[in-house]
Amino acid sequence: MAQLTFWFEFGSTYSYLSAMRIEELCRVAGLEVSWRPFLLGPIFRAQGWETSPFNIYEAKGRNMWRDTDRRARELGLPPVLKPDPFPQHSLLASRLALIGLEAGWGQDFVRQTYLRQFADGNSIAAPSDLQPVLEGLGVEASACLEAARTDIRIKDLLRKNTEQALEQGLYGAPSFTTSDGELFWGDDRLEKAIAWTLDQQTHAQG
Amino acid sequence: MAQLTFWFEFGSTYSYLSAMRIEELCRVAGLEVSWRPFLLGPIFRAQGWETSPFNIYEAKGRNMWRDTDRRARELGLPPVLKPDPFPQHSLLASRLALIGLEAGWGQDFVRQTYLRQFADGNSIAAPSDLQPVLEGLGVEASACLEAARTDIRIKDLLRKNTEQALEQGLYGAPSFTTSDGELFWGDDRLEKAIAWTLDQQTHAQG
Repeated sequence: MAQLTFWFEFGSTYSYLSAMRIEELCRVAGLEVSWRPFLLGPIFRAQGWETSPFNIYEAKGRNMWRDTDRRARELGLPPVLKPDPFPQHSLLASRLALIGLEAGWGQDFVRQTYLRQFADGNSIAAPSDLQPVLEGLGVEASACLEAARTDIRIKDLLRKNTEQALEQGLYGAPSFTTSDGELFWGDDRLEKAIAWTLDQQTHAQG
Repeated sequence: MAQLTFWFEFGSTYSYLSAMRIEELCRVAGLEVSWRPFLLGPIFRAQGWETSPFNIYEAKGRNMWRDTDRRARELGLPPVLKPDPFPQHSLLASRLALIGLEAGWGQDFVRQTYLRQFADGNSIAAPSDLQPVLEGLGVEASACLEAARTDIRIKDLLRKNTEQALEQGLYGAPSFTTSDGELFWGDDRLEKAIAWTLDQQTHAQG
């Protein structure tokens, strides 16, 4: 089964829009999704930014909130709310996602965490923010939170995801990479990334 | 007839992609396009950038060239070539576009100038670059070039376009604005801007 790699950052509004729909889109297309949480912070700092460009460039930020809200409504999602602060620290959520992706509840955790943040406007940075999300999924919240705090393998996995993101030329989220090395950036390129992967598959078979 | 305002900058690759298709898309949708050339230079400088962000941020620039090339092929346009230097100075081309838009040959001039730049990879900055474009359209090249150099009304028009772009919250090109004040940024939002305008029209009539 051909694969599409989905690189997402919990603080990213456009990653939210992709996270809510990628699984269904790829299922219909017959593609497997590899979910890869990573941290934009180090990548932004490498570009000289101490926060999101949507905070640094005011007009760009204003339009981003408007644009994601328009798009969310179009997708049948609730109006987009801005958590305070924006962006939220995403380290803990990213580690929990990695734990969950191995355990089978990762995708649901990602979607529920995004909804908490951008549909409800709540914080996702602290253990107490994510505990109810974990409980809602029926998993052992305190064990997961403890693992996120202490499991060196999980910490390394996230660090490596971020390093690999940089190595593969990622500079924003969401991004989509294909097995033949093509990079697509932005929620608005999700359909293009799927179409590209299907085309490659056809060529490989033909 | 409902109107969509198309803000474009000659140095912008994504503006090129929109310029090549907006007229036909809007004709089918029953919308009139108001073509507004403006200069991104002053807007970028206001954000602290001395050149295009595609030059400042290397990974972002690399993906932009790849992305626009993929998209150009999809639209049946030639492979995208990078002029040297990039971005090209767009002052002269913008003034000529304004002259042409009043005289009736402006849209053709815009498209031919973009093709010269991004399909052929040629310069568009100097009078000698644009003279063949004007001649190809059958207009009096030397009179137009002289007007672009001296006509204070045309110079003011371009300055006002750029000021209005800033006032309306534009921060990149292409951008599309609607009569009810909605702003869409990016070639990938052209269809959304058209759909928004049609929706507004329906509501106004209903």
